[in-house]
Formats: sequence, structure tokens, C-alpha cells
Amino acid sequence: EFTTGGLQSSSIANIEKMSPDRVPLCLDLLPALSGEDTTKDFFQELVNILLSYVCKSFRRSSKVLDFHHPHQLREGLEGFSLELPDQPENLEQLLVDCRDTLKYGVKTGTVRAVDLENLFSRFTYEVSPVFILMEEVLLRKMQEIVGWSEEEGDGVFCPGGTMSNLYSVLLARYHFFPEVKTKGMTALPRLILFTSAHSHYSVKKSAAVLGIGSENVVVVKCNDRGKMIPAELESSIITAKDQGCVPFYVNATAGTTVYGAFDPLNAIADICESHGLWLHVDAAWGGGLLMSNLHRVKLQGIERAWSVTWNPHKMMGAPLQCSAILVKKRGLLKDCNQMCAEYLFQTDKHYDTSYDTGDKTIQCGRHVDVFKLWLMWKAKGSEGFGSQVNKCLENAEHLFDKLNQRPDFELVFKSKPEHSNVCFWYIPPSLRNMPPGPERNRRLHEVAPKIKAKMMEQGMAMIGYQPLGDKVNFFRCVFSNPATQTEDVDYLLEEIASLGHDICIRIETNL
Amino acid sequence: EFTTGGLQSSSIANIEKMSPDRVPLCLDLLPALSGEDTTKDFFQELVNILLSYVCKSFRRSSKVLDFHHPHQLREGLEGFSLELPDQPENLEQLLVDCRDTLKYGVKTGTVRAVDLENLFSRFTYEVSPVFILMEEVLLRKMQEIVGWSEEEGDGVFCPGGTMSNLYSVLLARYHFFPEVKTKGMTALPRLILFTSAHSHYSVKKSAAVLGIGSENVVVVKCNDRGKMIPAELESSIITAKDQGCVPFYVNATAGTTVYGAFDPLNAIADICESHGLWLHVDAAWGGGLLMSNLHRVKLQGIERAWSVTWNPHKMMGAPLQCSAILVKKRGLLKDCNQMCAEYLFQTDKHYDTSYDTGDKTIQCGRHVDVFKLWLMWKAKGSEGFGSQVNKCLENAEHLFDKLNQRPDFELVFKSKPEHSNVCFWYIPPSLRNMPPGPERNRRLHEVAPKIKAKMMEQGMAMIGYQPLGDKVNFFRCVFSNPATQTEDVDYLLEEIASLGHDICIRIETNL
Repeated sequence: EFTTGGLQSSSIANIEKMSPDRVPLCLDLLPALSGEDTTKDFFQELVNILLSYVCKSFRRSSKVLDFHHPHQLREGLEGFSLELPDQPENLEQLLVDCRDTLKYGVKTGTVRAVDLENLFSRFTYEVSPVFILMEEVLLRKMQEIVGWSEEEGDGVFCPGGTMSNLYSVLLARYHFFPEVKTKGMTALPRLILFTSAHSHYSVKKSAAVLGIGSENVVVVKCNDRGKMIPAELESSIITAKDQGCVPFYVNATAGTTVYGAFDPLNAIADICESHGLWLHVDAAWGGGLLMSNLHRVKLQGIERAWSVTWNPHKMMGAPLQCSAILVKKRGLLKDCNQMCAEYLFQTDKHYDTSYDTGDKTIQCGRHVDVFKLWLMWKAKGSEGFGSQVNKCLENAEHLFDKLNQRPDFELVFKSKPEHSNVCFWYIPPSLRNMPPGPERNRRLHEVAPKIKAKMMEQGMAMIGYQPLGDKVNFFRCVFSNPATQTEDVDYLLEEIASLGHDICIRIETNL
Repeated sequence: EFTTGGLQSSSIANIEKMSPDRVPLCLDLLPALSGEDTTKDFFQELVNILLSYVCKSFRRSSKVLDFHHPHQLREGLEGFSLELPDQPENLEQLLVDCRDTLKYGVKTGTVRAVDLENLFSRFTYEVSPVFILMEEVLLRKMQEIVGWSEEEGDGVFCPGGTMSNLYSVLLARYHFFPEVKTKGMTALPRLILFTSAHSHYSVKKSAAVLGIGSENVVVVKCNDRGKMIPAELESSIITAKDQGCVPFYVNATAGTTVYGAFDPLNAIADICESHGLWLHVDAAWGGGLLMSNLHRVKLQGIERAWSVTWNPHKMMGAPLQCSAILVKKRGLLKDCNQMCAEYLFQTDKHYDTSYDTGDKTIQCGRHVDVFKLWLMWKAKGSEGFGSQVNKCLENAEHLFDKLNQRPDFELVFKSKPEHSNVCFWYIPPSLRNMPPGPERNRRLHEVAPKIKAKMMEQGMAMIGYQPLGDKVNFFRCVFSNPATQTEDVDYLLEEIASLGHDICIRIETNL
């Protein structure tokens, strides 16, 4: 038994039942309710496990691997379960999970593991039995949450959301034109993609990288709230066809980077269906809301997507990098990406080689991005992630309400935030009575950068700003750390106001 | 001062001066000569630093950032030097380095860091001041080692060697045909790439992904030793031109995956120069040899490359992922990949924004792959890496000599290994007197998989096998762990022989 004894369950659901002032500071980062000492003891125990593992692997008598077949590990060996719980596990069990992960893995540090090419990565089962199965369990769970049936769904963890989006375009192109893999784009007609004006720039970047060309990405207009206008999408598709081009792919965004807007997925899916286009949903930022019963309604229709990008390293708080591309059609990833490198992916092995996932990916060897997410899921449970999302969105609403009440701030859009993004200007005294127009905009554009510079030099808080379309530089506050409390939100606002008040006097003097 | 006191320098150079039997087991993984206790104390101290950092970041009074301008950090603040030493630092200094890294970084865990999009990654200086500068210092050092002048050289760390190779093809295409970024491949003539039959499959994969098509990769013949034949390259280029295609890129391999062969770089560079082609050197595996004065001669001519892939996560022992793409021409990475996303890369910041490297990459946010390499470099020094490489190649030579002396093994190629790859068959008794031919090959093909399966179930050692061209399944032993000793090499050989002897009797019964 774990030496500190008496550790409590780390349920965030339980925490939420407590009165707000009893919520510990370390809600997001640490599983322990009992405070700093428990946390230290937990980490210390973890370190002991790691040290004993490291020292053991130096001994020549240590085994490189304790081999088990995929189905054995999958079924749960000696109580080691890979399944993802709804309710959090306790700290003691988390330590057991860590020990088991090390126990069933390959000891890559041992002096007798001389099989370099295979030991670096987790693309064959024999070298990464535990992590390959963890990836499978996580992807399956995420597909289930997206709403796909048991017969549907494939996927892979990628080095970031841009790569996940790139995979989606690559797969869509291959699905419609499999000859592209061998013949290249010169064998194809002129392909056209569609994405909204507020979408992430990775869709354009993907088109540039994949040889489609960024000009062949049609940027569809959004409404004031940053949501793609379905009628605009449809007319763009028709225009492209009239011009002799071949539309094949639509990216809909669930949670835009700046406004946190959700495109109307069902309306877009209807259009994609009637034109036979691949629907990708970029839920890199918005995917986390699927974990919340309160907020998942904003992604209604996501189950109709052919592919989905979802980054647990954003709203779910996993450390970078942790991004998944989910693909509805099984086998497509492998068909699109495999190169049949015999020297890596032998088929005459003594176990089920369908678990050798390396040939599905662009990257070959991959960093292990799944263990941290798997362990977080054990520690928080699905419900814990849900509560965390709810908490962040409450903070956003609190900020929105505050801004609405103050004369020295102005909201970029007046409707309640859908995600945790809140966009606003600080209006210095001298601009408050100025009529709207180019001169006011010119001055307002300078305010946010100056406040930010001052803020960074003080180092007490950090917040981003940017212009967007016809909107001059505005602040964008985004909550993804559930340890942030309403008092922190209030502090931030006061800080901006006090720095802004001061700085703007100097702007006026300069002008 | 560090509490355990009296810690010795971790010089591998020093270790090499000791008699062989005094070399500690943990040569590669740990810097301490004084054994397990020192190691434990060192890790414990490291953990204490981390814990105090984590606990501090929970306090609302903690600063998010202690801001310094790039030039300040670059010049070495309060003794914090980013420079990479030739000689190893001692353990005490390594702990100071770790403390300083945390001190000058952004405290992303603090409750008041609410700037999500920027906090996840290290693509702008303001959120990753330390890691961005570490990347710069490491890339600069690697370019210097490759042999480029001070005016040349750019680069980026990538998620794996396949991605680095993909970058090289992407950059070459953009260099010759910048319109591809906006117009796509349909605006271009039929492009042709060249790579050797023994090169990594990522070159073909890149052509497939980038829309060039895998059939437009011409596979150039190799000699028996797995080296590209320059005359074959030249005639392939001429043939492609005669067919109306446009050759633009040649990949030369420094250290092939299976044989560890080095293509003749100068001869290939001559051909590239005369035809005006981009020369890429895939030194993912062989790049480590540049650290050794004994072995860097094998990469002669690498300084003539337009781009180089070098994976410190292979021969230099950094944990996956740690791969660099080095590019001779400055500015090309940015021109090729930037999409000018205003909301991420504002130019009206209060510091030198040329340090915001995100727009140079495909990925946008990136995992921090540089810290581990930087710290290893501090711990080992350039000379330590050199000694490590020498040690691995000595093991390979030892194995080669042993195999040469034994009747129960056969070498795949008879010449001394150039890298640490050694390829061989185990010849079971029943095959030793069999004449060469299809029947012997058919039987021999089954031997390695069966031995490997048995070995994995025992779990005492791990080694890979594969077929290649007309060679049936053979074992490939690769040394990259300098803790491996000649006794381990001997053990492995005995192990294979004893498992092989046993298994092959059963094969004979089956036939």
C-alpha cells in the first residue's frame, strides 16, 4: 500500500460540491485535495518508482521485455486495466498504473536492447506494447464520444493540430483520387477546398504543403459572430464547379481560435452530403466541450464528419503535444500512408501485426503522446474533464458579465461566449467620447500592444491580443486552466484598466 | 553547493582513460562515476527543484514571467550560459542549468496565465524565451559541425526524421518553383526526385504526401555495400530529362537504415552541381558520426548539401523525438511556410519578433524537443558525444570480427562496418553444407523470425531482422547504447546460436 496512506479520491466532481472558497488552488495540476504535502508525497513516490526502474534496467540480468500478446494485455493482465473510467481513480491506484505501465513495457535502456530502429518509437507492437494499446483505447473512446458507431472509426495521435488537419486533407484527397499517391497532383483536376474566414490557418498551410496550392482554398464568409454562413458555402461550391474546378473537402470549425465560434455543423453536413464532399471538423479547440453534458450540444452534427481534429492538449489540459485525428472510414489511413517498408514492418512475426501502427502515419517513429492523456483520464475520469470544461466556461461568462457592466471596456461581440474565448478592447479615457471612425480605430489599435508590453515587463499576468478583419487590435482572454478563479478574472481586468489608463495618457501626449 | 558534495565531472573522455573493467554500467544514462547513490542523489535534487517550482507556481503572487529581451538572455544573464561546451559540466552545474531554465521561462501553470493560444507552444519568443534561444544555439552548433559558414544556415527541430526529410523536399520544390505555394502542383512540370535503393522510405512517402507522387521518385542502384552508384544517378537524371521531366532533388544517405552505408557525398554533389539540383543529405542515422574525429571522414562532402537531416535521438542517444532539418539558405523556411496569421504573429510587439519561429514551421505549436539535447550537451560536452560514437562503433567491429571467425554465422557483407550496423545470418547445422540456391534461401528465410520470437518470449535480449532486395531474412544488430560492452555482444551471439540450434531442428522435422 502507498506509504502516505489515507489519500482521497481526486474527483473534481466532488470538489465542485464543496463551497467555492474551499476549492484548492491546484485543482487542475494536482489530484490531491489534502494539500501540498500529499502532493509532494505522491510525486516522491512516483520518483521512487522511476528510480528503481532505472537502476534495475542497468543490471544485465534484467529482462528487456516481458512479452504478452495484444489480446492478453487488452483483456487486463493481473488487474492492469487500460480502460478509461468515468469516475476518477484514487492516488494509490494511479501509482499502481504507473508501475504496471513500466512493467509491461520494453526496457529500452537496457544494455542488451540492441535493436535500434525498432526501439526508438512506438510504431510496432513488439517495442511499444503498452503505448500502442493505450492509443487504441483512447482513440476508441474519443470516437465513441464523437458519436461514431462501433464499426466506424480509425485514427492516430499527431504532433499538433496543424498536422491533424493536414492528415484530413491528405486523406480526403486520397479517398477521392487514390492515384495521387503514385502519380501526384499532375494526374488530377484542379481541386478546391472550403474553410471559413475565421478558421485556423493550418487549412491553407496544408493546401500549400500538399501541392494543392493555397489559392485553391476558398475562404467562406462568416457572420458577425465568426460562424460560417452555410448559404455562402453552397454558393462558393457552385461557383467553383461552374469554373470547372473540383470541390472535394470542407473544413468546419468547432471553436475558432479567436472568437471561439462553432460553425453550424448540421447545415454544413447537409451541403457536403448533397455535393458529395468530405466533411472535416476542426475541433482542435472545441473538442473538449464534448466532455461536458452542458456544452456538447454546441457540436451537434459532429458525428456526421468524415474526420475530426481534437487536441486534448488544449481544453483538456494535457501537456503539448497531444492531438488526435479521428477518421470515420477504417483502413483509409493505412492505404493512404503505407509504403510497405519490409525492413520495418515484417508480416512474418509471431503476433497479430495489425497492431503495428507505424505504417498508418506520415511520421514513422513517433513520440509517445498518449501516456499523459491516459493517466489524466484515470486521475480525473470522464466526469472530471466535464467539470473542468464547465468551470472554464463559467469563468468566461463571469468576465463577459463584468465587461458588459464597465464603461472602460468594450466587447468585440455582444452575445454570450459559446466557448471560453472573450474578446474585448480597453477604451482609454480620451477615446471614450470619440466618434467611431478611422482616427479612433488608429488610436485604439495601439492600446492593446502597449498594455501587453507593460504587462509582460511586470510579469504578473499574460494575455494575448490581435486584430481580425476590420477589427483593430483587441484582447482575447481564453480560459483553459480550471484553477483560475473569478478573483483572478477580476484581478486581470483591474490590471488592464490600470495599465491602460496610465499608458494612454502618454499616447495622447505623443499625438 | 550541491548537498552530496564531491561529485566528479562526468567526462566520458575521462572514463575512456580508465581500464575497461572499471567502466560503470551506466555510462550512457547517467553522468555520475561514483555509482548508484550519487545518481539517486542527483535525481532527488532535480525532483526537489521541480517540486518547489510547481508549488511556487500555484501562488497567486508568483510572476508569470520574468521578461528579458532576446539579446539579454543570449549574452548570458547572471551566469546562465546557453553555450554548448566541448568538455562536460559537473553535476552541480547541471542542477544550476535546470534551475535557470525554469527561472527564465514562462510559468505556464500559473492561474493568471490566461493566454491560451500562445502558452501551449514555443513558437513565439514571449512564451518560450529560453527554449527558442536553446533551439537557435543548438541549430547553430550543428550547422557549424556540418561545416557551413557563419552566413549560411537555418533550421528547425521536427517531429522525427521522416518529417525532416519531408521538409527538405518541400523546401527544394519551393526554391525552384515558389508559385507552388499558391498555385499547387498543377502549375508545375512533372518533377523527379532521386534516392538510392537503400535509402529510407520517407523520401517516397514525402513525394506521396506533397502531391509529387511516389512514382516520380527514381530509385538509384546501389553497390553491394549499399552505397549509391554515382554513374547510375547521372544516367537516371539524363533519362528523366530526355523523357521531358524536370529533375530537381537528390537525396543522399549518410548511414542507411539496414547496412549503415554512406553514399559518396562528394561525387553526388558534383553531379548535383552540374545539373543544378538540390542536394539533401539524410544523415538521420549517420549524423552522429560528425561528433567523432575518428569517423566524421565518412561524411566528407556533407557541407555541400543544401539541406541535412540529423536525428540526435538516434546515435547521440537523446530520447525520441529529437530530429533537426538544417537548411543552408537563410529565409527559405519562412518564405516557404509562413501564412501570416496575424492573430498569432503580431509584428507590433515590444521585442525583436524575428525570434518568433512558429511561422517557419509546418506545425505551428511544437513540442519542446531541444531542452533534453541541450542538457545532454552540457553533461557530456562535444567530446563526450564523440567518445560515445567511437564506443558504439568499436562494439560493431568486435561483433564483425567474432562473426568472421564462426562457422555458424554468415555476414551479409564482408567488408568492415562503416557505421554500427552489422548484418548477418545464423546458419543452423542442417543448412551449413547445403549448396546456395532457392531451397536453402527458403529455409534460411524462416530462421531469423523463429529465433526472434523465441528471444522475445524469453525477454533477455532484443534484435531486429528483415529481408532486403535478394537477401532473405537476416539479423541486423545496431549499437547506439554506449553502455553495451563486448561481453554483451558475446552474450547475444551465444544466445542466438543456442536458440537457433534448437529451433532449426524443429524446422527440419516440419519440412
